[in-house]
Amino acid sequence: MANYFVKIFITYRKGVLDPQGIAVEKAAHSLGFEKVKNVKVGKYITMNIEADSPEEVKREIEEMAKKFLVNPVIEEYTYEVEEVKR
Amino acid sequence: MANYFVKIFITYRKGVLDPQGIAVEKAAHSLGFEKVKNVKVGKYITMNIEADSPEEVKREIEEMAKKFLVNPVIEEYTYEVEEVKR
Repeated sequence: MANYFVKIFITYRKGVLDPQGIAVEKAAHSLGFEKVKNVKVGKYITMNIEADSPEEVKREIEEMAKKFLVNPVIEEYTYEVEEVKR
Repeated sequence: MANYFVKIFITYRKGVLDPQGIAVEKAAHSLGFEKVKNVKVGKYITMNIEADSPEEVKREIEEMAKKFLVNPVIEEYTYEVEEVKR
């Protein structure tokens, strides 16, 4: 068994309204950051997973994404896996 | 002027209660993902910034973080900047 550190990045699909992104962009512009465009606010989830291999970790992540982490109608995700050295 | 794509990762500081992280971890365990530990839910913000150099982009990000993006009492952040090739 090894320990893996996982980072998951969840974003809205293109075309889905992102009210938080709009709010942040408006705040940026009204505070003078006018060169900021196309702001999107998603989720950044980190966790540790115990597993025998990176492949097992990938399977776990993809199953969790499917079962409860990600709403595929409006969201998409990417992830990174790194082994934690003890 | 060049266009830069920016990714900002905002997480709670160590020791700060993360109710969303706790909720996701409980959901994981109750659905059979028992090897998942230490779940944290943060924000993943992306944007485009027009600037003359990566240094200018970094200054903009750090100023935005200070002024409204990040609450330094409970949050910390990292970021990545890449130039968009046209």
